[in-house]
Amino acid sequence: MLVPMEDINLHFTGDMHAITTANNLISACLDNHIHQGNELDIDIEHITWKRCLDMNDRTLRNINIGQGAKANGVERHDGFNITVASEVMAVLCLASSLTDLKERLGRMLIAYNTKNEPIYVKDLGIEGALAMVLKDAIKPNMVQTLEHNPVLIHGGPFANIAHGCNSLLATKTCLKLSDYTITEAGFGADLGAEKFLDIKCRLGGLKPNAVVIVATIRALKQHGNVAYEDLKEENVEAMLAGCENLAKHIDTIKQFGLPYIVAINEFATDTPNEVKALEEWCKEHHHPMSLSQVWAKGGEGAIDLANQLIGLCNQENTYAPLYDVNDTIENKINIIAKKAYGADGVDFTDEAKEQIALYNKLGWDKMPICMAKTQMSLTDDGKVFGAPKGFRITVRELNPSLGAGFMVALTGKVLTMPGLPKVPAANKMDITEDGHITGLF
Amino acid sequence: MLVPMEDINLHFTGDMHAITTANNLISACLDNHIHQGNELDIDIEHITWKRCLDMNDRTLRNINIGQGAKANGVERHDGFNITVASEVMAVLCLASSLTDLKERLGRMLIAYNTKNEPIYVKDLGIEGALAMVLKDAIKPNMVQTLEHNPVLIHGGPFANIAHGCNSLLATKTCLKLSDYTITEAGFGADLGAEKFLDIKCRLGGLKPNAVVIVATIRALKQHGNVAYEDLKEENVEAMLAGCENLAKHIDTIKQFGLPYIVAINEFATDTPNEVKALEEWCKEHHHPMSLSQVWAKGGEGAIDLANQLIGLCNQENTYAPLYDVNDTIENKINIIAKKAYGADGVDFTDEAKEQIALYNKLGWDKMPICMAKTQMSLTDDGKVFGAPKGFRITVRELNPSLGAGFMVALTGKVLTMPGLPKVPAANKMDITEDGHITGLF
Amino acid sequence: MLVPMEDINLHFTGDMHAITTANNLISACLDNHIHQGNELDIDIEHITWKRCLDMNDRTLRNINIGQGAKANGVERHDGFNITVASEVMAVLCLASSLTDLKERLGRMLIAYNTKNEPIYVKDLGIEGALAMVLKDAIKPNMVQTLEHNPVLIHGGPFANIAHGCNSLLATKTCLKLSDYTITEAGFGADLGAEKFLDIKCRLGGLKPNAVVIVATIRALKQHGNVAYEDLKEENVEAMLAGCENLAKHIDTIKQFGLPYIVAINEFATDTPNEVKALEEWCKEHHHPMSLSQVWAKGGEGAIDLANQLIGLCNQENTYAPLYDVNDTIENKINIIAKKAYGADGVDFTDEAKEQIALYNKLGWDKMPICMAKTQMSLTDDGKVFGAPKGFRITVRELNPSLGAGFMVALTGKVLTMPGLPKVPAANKMDITEDGHITGLF
Amino acid sequence: MLVPMEDINLHFTGDMHAITTANNLISACLDNHIHQGNELDIDIEHITWKRCLDMNDRTLRNINIGQGAKANGVERHDGFNITVASEVMAVLCLASSLTDLKERLGRMLIAYNTKNEPIYVKDLGIEGALAMVLKDAIKPNMVQTLEHNPVLIHGGPFANIAHGCNSLLATKTCLKLSDYTITEAGFGADLGAEKFLDIKCRLGGLKPNAVVIVATIRALKQHGNVAYEDLKEENVEAMLAGCENLAKHIDTIKQFGLPYIVAINEFATDTPNEVKALEEWCKEHHHPMSLSQVWAKGGEGAIDLANQLIGLCNQENTYAPLYDVNDTIENKINIIAKKAYGADGVDFTDEAKEQIALYNKLGWDKMPICMAKTQMSLTDDGKVFGAPKGFRITVRELNPSLGAGFMVALTGKVLTMPGLPKVPAANKMDITEDGHITGLF
Repeated sequence: MLVPMEDINLHFTGDMHAITTANNLISACLDNHIHQGNELDIDIEHITWKRCLDMNDRTLRNINIGQGAKANGVERHDGFNITVASEVMAVLCLASSLTDLKERLGRMLIAYNTKNEPIYVKDLGIEGALAMVLKDAIKPNMVQTLEHNPVLIHGGPFANIAHGCNSLLATKTCLKLSDYTITEAGFGADLGAEKFLDIKCRLGGLKPNAVVIVATIRALKQHGNVAYEDLKEENVEAMLAGCENLAKHIDTIKQFGLPYIVAINEFATDTPNEVKALEEWCKEHHHPMSLSQVWAKGGEGAIDLANQLIGLCNQENTYAPLYDVNDTIENKINIIAKKAYGADGVDFTDEAKEQIALYNKLGWDKMPICMAKTQMSLTDDGKVFGAPKGFRITVRELNPSLGAGFMVALTGKVLTMPGLPKVPAANKMDITEDGHITGLF
Repeated sequence: MLVPMEDINLHFTGDMHAITTANNLISACLDNHIHQGNELDIDIEHITWKRCLDMNDRTLRNINIGQGAKANGVERHDGFNITVASEVMAVLCLASSLTDLKERLGRMLIAYNTKNEPIYVKDLGIEGALAMVLKDAIKPNMVQTLEHNPVLIHGGPFANIAHGCNSLLATKTCLKLSDYTITEAGFGADLGAEKFLDIKCRLGGLKPNAVVIVATIRALKQHGNVAYEDLKEENVEAMLAGCENLAKHIDTIKQFGLPYIVAINEFATDTPNEVKALEEWCKEHHHPMSLSQVWAKGGEGAIDLANQLIGLCNQENTYAPLYDVNDTIENKINIIAKKAYGADGVDFTDEAKEQIALYNKLGWDKMPICMAKTQMSLTDDGKVFGAPKGFRITVRELNPSLGAGFMVALTGKVLTMPGLPKVPAANKMDITEDGHITGLF
Repeated sequence: MLVPMEDINLHFTGDMHAITTANNLISACLDNHIHQGNELDIDIEHITWKRCLDMNDRTLRNINIGQGAKANGVERHDGFNITVASEVMAVLCLASSLTDLKERLGRMLIAYNTKNEPIYVKDLGIEGALAMVLKDAIKPNMVQTLEHNPVLIHGGPFANIAHGCNSLLATKTCLKLSDYTITEAGFGADLGAEKFLDIKCRLGGLKPNAVVIVATIRALKQHGNVAYEDLKEENVEAMLAGCENLAKHIDTIKQFGLPYIVAINEFATDTPNEVKALEEWCKEHHHPMSLSQVWAKGGEGAIDLANQLIGLCNQENTYAPLYDVNDTIENKINIIAKKAYGADGVDFTDEAKEQIALYNKLGWDKMPICMAKTQMSLTDDGKVFGAPKGFRITVRELNPSLGAGFMVALTGKVLTMPGLPKVPAANKMDITEDGHITGLF
Repeated sequence: MLVPMEDINLHFTGDMHAITTANNLISACLDNHIHQGNELDIDIEHITWKRCLDMNDRTLRNINIGQGAKANGVERHDGFNITVASEVMAVLCLASSLTDLKERLGRMLIAYNTKNEPIYVKDLGIEGALAMVLKDAIKPNMVQTLEHNPVLIHGGPFANIAHGCNSLLATKTCLKLSDYTITEAGFGADLGAEKFLDIKCRLGGLKPNAVVIVATIRALKQHGNVAYEDLKEENVEAMLAGCENLAKHIDTIKQFGLPYIVAINEFATDTPNEVKALEEWCKEHHHPMSLSQVWAKGGEGAIDLANQLIGLCNQENTYAPLYDVNDTIENKINIIAKKAYGADGVDFTDEAKEQIALYNKLGWDKMPICMAKTQMSLTDDGKVFGAPKGFRITVRELNPSLGAGFMVALTGKVLTMPGLPKVPAANKMDITEDGHITGLF
């Protein structure tokens, strides 16, 4: 059960590689089908399935494949997503069994034929092979903390570009095995929490009891417009200004009808003045709060937080998703943008409008929405901090994840394949002859 | 230690995925370096490093990357190899330690600058990160047979397009742990055996004792020009005609100065007449021989073979590689083609000649040669069976594997990325709810 | 001097071919410069100059060039415009002499270097060769009408995607040779007239006397939302509804301070009721008007129009361009959109905003604007007829034509390379052995 | 009739532009056909028709078109030839009338469908439009020399990559109008003369009387292996060594059964010793010869040559093409290589062999061969001078020109689209305000 941190961050149990392989097996079979005569009459200008790789590789975003000799397959445009954005990842995280997994994989949309009718993975007849490739990846992975508490780690759809929740199988396993099940929903209440509460709980029939809203003083100062390189300096005023952002996340959780507590995740660089000011801000606004000192003290540093949380879990709550799944695509996105982001409304590009018209015709409009949006801002522009007002969200593209059972809406300039920085992290990493790893931080 | 066959064929211990990741991390860092200003002045028309994937995907052989917006990186031509053809695989199989692995990874050639000077992985400064990615993959994997004999499986460079031998670390581990070490060298004496004896033994300082030449009656009939669909029919005459091919493989082993035994690997479809005729052919030509019935009877079916082999191992031998590593590139390839294939000689394309001139100038001419050639024929044309005479081999491209320490010579139309057949194997595979896999055969 | 209609429409005097050649000579020298070492440090991801062809060829809009061997030049993205959209065409139409032509050609922007500094044609040192290629094309071409009146035809920048006016040299030649100079400004007052009055008159120092606004009953019915296939049917009501569109064009001319007359260009399919109703609409709104019957009667059919026009030319006028050339780029475009199109305002895409910021920095903001907009509508959406209100124009891209001396603003989905329809006109054309041409109409 | 040299070299009468336009109209209609539904089931991986441009533009050799949005047409690989290599040029040069032109254009091969059946221009139904585009280009152009002799200039297929002869219409016009018709067949007897005598005379039913073999002392020295920069120095020995090359051209003409005379085309840099030595070499080998001084003296400088030539024209001759048009493709090429180049034989690449098999099946094997070969050498390697022995020619690709009526064989590395040198000629060209052109030499 013991897995060191490097192993988790590196290949772990190989789930990510299995998902990559399954995703790319679809692409290889799809292109092979076209090359071998294209019996399904697939429109090579209207293929929606992309390849993927677990690598930040910007040059693979937009590529032309099948160049050169005829034996190299048909030329067409394609692109790679990062593996965490693959629908296979979402499907693995939402499947309830191997059989359900296979059915979901078979339902995934991959292309349209020249009559604009959808083509699914099952039309290629490879959903069985895909499920086989994922036979181990579908099993939750158990690891332990430094204090030997068991933890399930399973599935990794990033909450900015995917649905942001660990697997339903892991959550349900935990619900059976333990008294309390705590799950992380990545990034803020606009992303991870919204998707956990609107998508995963809805599709999995889960009933949450309470929410821990984790706040850091560093992030609040950044939302108070302190520059990145100055975040180490004490700045109570800026932190209080940034609390507007925290207030918006609290407001979003309230709209879901759930009790909550703010956990102040103490950093070594936080000053007593800052901590005190934040505690007072919480009291003043009547937000339940606890100072969490787990980084410094381990489990002992969160006993108060745990006790308060148990109290919240025993309260009644009125949890409900933000929107009705049977509403129109436009309305559902508008509700999320207004309620969870504080936006005035949503603009759809012409391309997005055409897609909605097609999806309505095909009956794909009754699914939850999975927003792809920058995690840096409540808006779709990663450079806008705090809790802005009077802004609009732009939806530029909509992709149905029919296997997962939701509709992905790409906003602003969000990308499903990141790039490396000027100096990649790889340049700092090293390993010694006896296997000691350096440069991970 | 117990790993079922499906796991070995599927993700196994993840070594292949780790190699894929390391290979593609180089590409991502290389393209990122160019995108971020190209301080190394890399010539984008002269990049030799390719991406890879463990997937038969013909459409990825020739691609254009970095299309579209400037943020998507610089446009250039690239291609994917299959992972087993990656130099990272060869390096992992020849490394003697983590430190040696790191140094070999750093030495790998990736491109030339605009002054035609070589650029290596170490110029990107990521060899430490690569070694870290491979920290578990470098460890040999132990599995067991159905009769609970321990077996090491480690590394998988295919012998048609790569050097075809398992890892040196696994072989050396086995030499320490057991009385006899048997290793498989894939395909015939023209490929796996030639590379084991000319490359791996030479670079690893190994001294082999004897060779088991495995022959099947089916293959001999094919070399006697029986059509694939008729191989099940008894055909003694064709089998005897095909023995010419076996005779050439025996001849090649003799040239290496090693004792040998022909193991007739009995199939259920072999007829008594055929088996008898093959045994007589061996006797007539004074080739040591044993009928191996391991498929039907397990270990018991090869007791005679094992006893004979022990006898051979106790003989003196005059093992020596076929060629002097300090000979010219052309001569070394000519010697392999003449001695191991029975060719009259070798033609080099203009491109290959230009490459040789460059490699001579750069001092890369003193390495063993790793031939990439079809396994279907002694010639470089996969449709020619038997033991042909009067043919020539065409070398169309030469790629230095400076990390592995050999020069790869691509012959005929051999490809480093296969394609799928009209009906891919994936179409037959399936898995049941309780994890039972079907369709692998 | 006699040139039949087919010759004008076919190769004419070869001016278009010379412009195509000059345009593509720049591209060939630019790519050759990069291939030969790129001394100018041109950023291959930031080349603005495109190739061109006088052919409606949609597949050439977006292409990748320099594929394959290194000798084929550096790989990059490029595209073809239609020749009439080439800046060389605009430059030829605005040049005052061979020397001025050469200087303008030298000033044309072709790319940026990696420091984001502009690279001009003169940096390649080929403006002399380009002027030589255009030495005959710069000379106005004289043809005659069926009634033997001399006409100058020279230059053809389409008014939807370019500046829409014939050459300044031809206009000035005509001003010297004749009593009255009449010039066509293609499409409506939103396109040809706006550009003639805001760009050509301003840059050429011309002072127009009066404007003939040509109206056809067919077009008015279309603006009254009659379907294309029903335009032959009498429909007075729809025609009167479509007069809103005519009224907007008249209004635009008035804003330029010029006297005008509406010429009703009579078609064989116009009915007496329609003609009468249009004449009455003009009278009712006090618009000077004349029925032009030149199609049926030749010059005689426009004697009244000519006489009225002479009267208008003798009036004083207050002609002035719509905007101050020293205003900001955004303001100038807003003024055109509001005054000439009747729009509420203009939206700039993020890309357009970034371009404006760069052009401001480089001092390229003090030039007239050349709008590229569909000719089918006053809006930037070709499916909206009549005189709509409450709409906005989207500017998606801005391209400085430094040789011509204006800034091109691309709106909506306007394309600078058209495509062919399902049945191209070429399918109907033919020529007999004795040179008789059929199928042009 | 007076056309200055610059006009001939620039746009002349626009024939080249018309050919470019016709060629590219085919491509635009072909791609449009595919985009609009591909009723002809054209295999986009097997399109043989290429675009063309009259520009040395290496980056257009290999391109990918139809990138981006679906409205931009179907993505595929394409390339541009230089216009002189377009089959339209060959067709124009071999057509006997407008009607014949139209039929030939209709017969041109453009692609195969997915059943590997040929698709012709006439399947697109645009041969009428193409003939119309060429209606003026098909008419021979008359110019005059500095001494006012009339000359017909018509058609320009380069003799290295095309069939190298001016138009049949021009030749037949001249035969009717004058006593003697002299035509230039570009480059040596291996290229222009071979094609004139094997293709044009055969297809056009022409009976030549005599051949003038033009020799320059500079070229002979180059074939004697004098470096380019030393050609101005006197070097009698090298010149005499280079006469081997001249001897081979003479030998080729003899094989065609025609009387000949060597014309020494005197240059200002030739020395008396060199001229004398060449005259003596001719005498010694009994080759009729005349010193031509037309560069220095005009027509007067070739009176002796003309008189001798008239004498030859009055002789009987036994003219016959080198090969029987009904022989196999391989044999015909072998005969040309052996008889006209002095080669030992011909190697066909695998691709060429597959093409021949297909063309045999389609009945396209009974046409003359049009060799594409470097003009720098009798071999297919432009760096080999003199009259080498013991070499072989490589045919890498065969393209049927069904409209022209011959089969093009590409040898060695010959390219159908040239590139620009490091300093393009355009950099030296200029034009003054009064139209004076400089820098052409």
